[in-house]
Amino acid sequence: MSEPVETLDGWYSLHDFRTIDWTAWKLAAPEEREAALHELKQLFEKWESVEERKDGSSGIYSIVGQKADLLFWNLRPTMEELNKLENELNKTKFAEFTLPAYSYVSVVELSNYMAQGKDPDTDPEIQARLKPILPKWDHICFYPMDKRRMGDDNWYMMSKEDRGKLMYAHGKTGRKYAGKIRQIITGSIGFDDWEWGVTLLGHDVLQFKKLVYEMRFDEVSARFAEFGPFYVGHRMEKEQFPSYMQV
Amino acid sequence: MSEPVETLDGWYSLHDFRTIDWTAWKLAAPEEREAALHELKQLFEKWESVEERKDGSSGIYSIVGQKADLLFWNLRPTMEELNKLENELNKTKFAEFTLPAYSYVSVVELSNYMAQGKDPDTDPEIQARLKPILPKWDHICFYPMDKRRMGDDNWYMMSKEDRGKLMYAHGKTGRKYAGKIRQIITGSIGFDDWEWGVTLLGHDVLQFKKLVYEMRFDEVSARFAEFGPFYVGHRMEKEQFPSYMQV
Amino acid sequence: MSEPVETLDGWYSLHDFRTIDWTAWKLAAPEEREAALHELKQLFEKWESVEERKDGSSGIYSIVGQKADLLFWNLRPTMEELNKLENELNKTKFAEFTLPAYSYVSVVELSNYMAQGKDPDTDPEIQARLKPILPKWDHICFYPMDKRRMGDDNWYMMSKEDRGKLMYAHGKTGRKYAGKIRQIITGSIGFDDWEWGVTLLGHDVLQFKKLVYEMRFDEVSARFAEFGPFYVGHRMEKEQFPSYMQV
Amino acid sequence: MSEPVETLDGWYSLHDFRTIDWTAWKLAAPEEREAALHELKQLFEKWESVEERKDGSSGIYSIVGQKADLLFWNLRPTMEELNKLENELNKTKFAEFTLPAYSYVSVVELSNYMAQGKDPDTDPEIQARLKPILPKWDHICFYPMDKRRMGDDNWYMMSKEDRGKLMYAHGKTGRKYAGKIRQIITGSIGFDDWEWGVTLLGHDVLQFKKLVYEMRFDEVSARFAEFGPFYVGHRMEKEQFPSYMQV
Amino acid sequence: MSEPVETLDGWYSLHDFRTIDWTAWKLAAPEEREAALHELKQLFEKWESVEERKDGSSGIYSIVGQKADLLFWNLRPTMEELNKLENELNKTKFAEFTLPAYSYVSVVELSNYMAQGKDPDTDPEIQARLKPILPKWDHICFYPMDKRRMGDDNWYMMSKEDRGKLMYAHGKTGRKYAGKIRQIITGSIGFDDWEWGVTLLGHDVLQFKKLVYEMRFDEVSARFAEFGPFYVGHRMEKEQFPSYMQV
Repeated sequence: MSEPVETLDGWYSLHDFRTIDWTAWKLAAPEEREAALHELKQLFEKWESVEERKDGSSGIYSIVGQKADLLFWNLRPTMEELNKLENELNKTKFAEFTLPAYSYVSVVELSNYMAQGKDPDTDPEIQARLKPILPKWDHICFYPMDKRRMGDDNWYMMSKEDRGKLMYAHGKTGRKYAGKIRQIITGSIGFDDWEWGVTLLGHDVLQFKKLVYEMRFDEVSARFAEFGPFYVGHRMEKEQFPSYMQV
Repeated sequence: MSEPVETLDGWYSLHDFRTIDWTAWKLAAPEEREAALHELKQLFEKWESVEERKDGSSGIYSIVGQKADLLFWNLRPTMEELNKLENELNKTKFAEFTLPAYSYVSVVELSNYMAQGKDPDTDPEIQARLKPILPKWDHICFYPMDKRRMGDDNWYMMSKEDRGKLMYAHGKTGRKYAGKIRQIITGSIGFDDWEWGVTLLGHDVLQFKKLVYEMRFDEVSARFAEFGPFYVGHRMEKEQFPSYMQV
Repeated sequence: MSEPVETLDGWYSLHDFRTIDWTAWKLAAPEEREAALHELKQLFEKWESVEERKDGSSGIYSIVGQKADLLFWNLRPTMEELNKLENELNKTKFAEFTLPAYSYVSVVELSNYMAQGKDPDTDPEIQARLKPILPKWDHICFYPMDKRRMGDDNWYMMSKEDRGKLMYAHGKTGRKYAGKIRQIITGSIGFDDWEWGVTLLGHDVLQFKKLVYEMRFDEVSARFAEFGPFYVGHRMEKEQFPSYMQV
Repeated sequence: MSEPVETLDGWYSLHDFRTIDWTAWKLAAPEEREAALHELKQLFEKWESVEERKDGSSGIYSIVGQKADLLFWNLRPTMEELNKLENELNKTKFAEFTLPAYSYVSVVELSNYMAQGKDPDTDPEIQARLKPILPKWDHICFYPMDKRRMGDDNWYMMSKEDRGKLMYAHGKTGRKYAGKIRQIITGSIGFDDWEWGVTLLGHDVLQFKKLVYEMRFDEVSARFAEFGPFYVGHRMEKEQFPSYMQV
Repeated sequence: MSEPVETLDGWYSLHDFRTIDWTAWKLAAPEEREAALHELKQLFEKWESVEERKDGSSGIYSIVGQKADLLFWNLRPTMEELNKLENELNKTKFAEFTLPAYSYVSVVELSNYMAQGKDPDTDPEIQARLKPILPKWDHICFYPMDKRRMGDDNWYMMSKEDRGKLMYAHGKTGRKYAGKIRQIITGSIGFDDWEWGVTLLGHDVLQFKKLVYEMRFDEVSARFAEFGPFYVGHRMEKEQFPSYMQV
């Protein structure tokens, strides 16, 4: 038996991707659309006040291509809160004009390496990473992934030391993009179909491609990564939402 | 030919995952919704009285993310009873407001190792594990799985002794979580698309992640496990159901 | 080139799995439902009279779980008859309340080994196996499968002798379940997406699990079998159908 | 780099599989159904006159099982003509009562071996094979396939000579079925999701199974073939169509 | 760690495949159809004026087979513009008569090899390739692809030098088709589910098959390419659109 790496776990995360039913939206009466947007605005304000109290964080994104139109990303201290939030969103008028596209359930995760010599429960840097207030950067990229267990390329059969070396080299690639890309890793073993979710936030969408491409040559990705679907999009302020939905 | 391990088989199990059609639910007249909830409540009471008579067990869960909204999990002495129960649920008014999301047909299964020197038909501990009354713990995690048959990693070509050693080590990982996680293994070879269903019940949802992650480093998982979709959620009392459905 | 085993081929087979649209069924007027059931009863009687004339055989089954609600299984001397039968069913009123769930097109198949020294066209036992009248046993299990062609585990690259040995051992496992399980193998190479369909009929649903589990340790399954979806269910008499559909 | 085999390419091919929406068909007024069939008859006549002028060929087939009900197979000198034909069919009244089930875009393909010492542009036998008038045989079988590129079983890394030997042996299996099965190979690299489409026409549906089964033991299939979905069905004369659709 | 090849990145690209809902289109009033086509024409004119200003490029294509009916392909300097364009299209009347079929998000990509000794930001040839005005050639072929990472065939574990040699040989195959086929490579790592999109434009659709077939024997394809779905179609002038939609 190979030995796992301890993880630190923070806020729970729900990526909720939706497709807009534009035909139904256009068929609705103007007052119905206005009411739907008003109710949604109130929900967004509620999410904002949660963020202001540092009890969670939220982001609204427009997704490119047919895989989805919108991403509502929420982080909360408990999974029950996410479930409640999700149901609250589902019960809105606005939700009647959307179709489920994809979702991802996970929890913010840090390797315990981070915590060396620090108390993760009080260290401000660790706490800030476990309970991240989402930076208001313009672009987002999300994809889930697994570590491969196939023939000679079986991540979970490697020694902790060898895994550590590969992860360290991988981390160096990531650090080259400091200031350009903020990476939030969420663990989903036991929660959703892949082992991790990776969310990248950036000022320039091209940096997502450069980072993920460069990382693919890291041995840990080249030999051990299995990737799920990729979603890319742009951050929206809640004030932009009505014009986004204008028909 | 490698030799199989004898299994003890108990109650049959149906995991019935559903997605709520909130738009239709909101369109329904208040009396229609009330009638639907009333009829469902009566069904839940029927399930409870079955459980009180120890003729089966039932749990109602809210599932997180878009893969499903609800899980109705029922255990019964025969598969015919599950089929009848499923059709009864399908015929309710409430079912008109749900869409099928996923289901799993299996039977509670124990390795015969458990029974050493005991009569499984009368031993109270074995009987309690074969016919489990579901503990009222807050959280649930379900996933189906196969044992791999691929190249050198072929579970079914290994000797019974080697399989036993790997399962024993795996069991030790599981036992570390005693009191934190209750694991119910159901066999589904011949019944559904994967070989086993794993249902975890816990007081803290994070323990699911810790257990499944730690187990992934057990050789039996690292080399031999193939996993299906994961579902995670929260237990509901039937009294909570009307407020869950409140629109 | 490895040499194929000659097969004997009998009646053509169509497994027709359907999901019931309960909402539409309940919305229909009572007379409409009655008319639909009456028409279906006439079709069932027609199938029965075919069976009485030994011109085919039929079974009606209730399937457990969300993958399907009903299975209509028909065997006929020609594929054209199955196609006609299928279209006749599709044109019924009842079919308007069902959705396609899965189907399988195949032909009853015996290995030529069976025929040693006998004339398969006249031998009564072989004829009875090629043109089987379905026993009225309570339970059914269906799954399609392939023989693997992957790296060192390539069934079609093995010698006929080696394949024969593995199949012989496999047959011994099957024979242990004589009287408990009736197995009908149908070939589907060139007809449907997998190479064979396996249909098991039994008095006790648990025996399906025991047989398929035990067989999985046979080298022929462990190394060479790829399995499709599994369906399990219960036989219905046509007289039970109206109460099954009662809403 | 391994060297490709030159191909001769003939008429373009569109296999257009459709599922009939019987509920909608029955709901339509008798005059609407009659008008739909009349319009479709005119389209079929147009296809026939194209065939009479040797400017293409067409076949109408009834498909067995739930994967599709109908196959319209058309061959034309250019892909633009197929696209136009497809859109013309889509715009008919009849198409409103069908759902897309599967389609395949390809081009009739012969190995250049055929052409040794002949001018493929004028040789009548080669021309007849590149621009085939579909024989009016009773049964059809269609499946797409790839040549495998996996580990040691990589078709495209073998020498042209070795590939030629395997294909020659494969051809011998095919020739055993001369007069029983007519095989039309269409290439689809760059056009559709698999590399080739295989269409078999026969007088006896069982011969499809025998041929495909026997070929599976040819090394070229055993080691290198990956198969897509299989469709099997029966030829219809256009005069049979109204009774096929009779409700 | 193997070393990546630097890329030059140009315009962002959205391939937007749609299926026409012909039934709904025919049900619409003639004025509604006319209004939908008029609005779409204005959008097409807007795209044309963008192209005239060299601020992007656009193409409208009719796709063969059931996978899609239309492809709208747009290239723009930023991904935000593509997202805006996509939403503008989604909000049109015409979009109500289409269903999403497939989409692909990527960015025009050149290997840095191209730029040897040139300034890619000013060199006219490089700029023309990074910001391509789509040639008005008759035919289009699109497919996404990955470089394989499997066992011994792991592209990302090879040395830069070895990768370079394979790509050079591959390029030679491509250059044989100069004047016949224009190839536009778009990178999608981090943006969509495959690593690259390949779009071929040609005067003769058969050349797509010949090129992709010949390339499959290049070691880089034979050993390392994984292909997604293939789409093939024909270019339409915006003036042809009304007759294409005529019912």
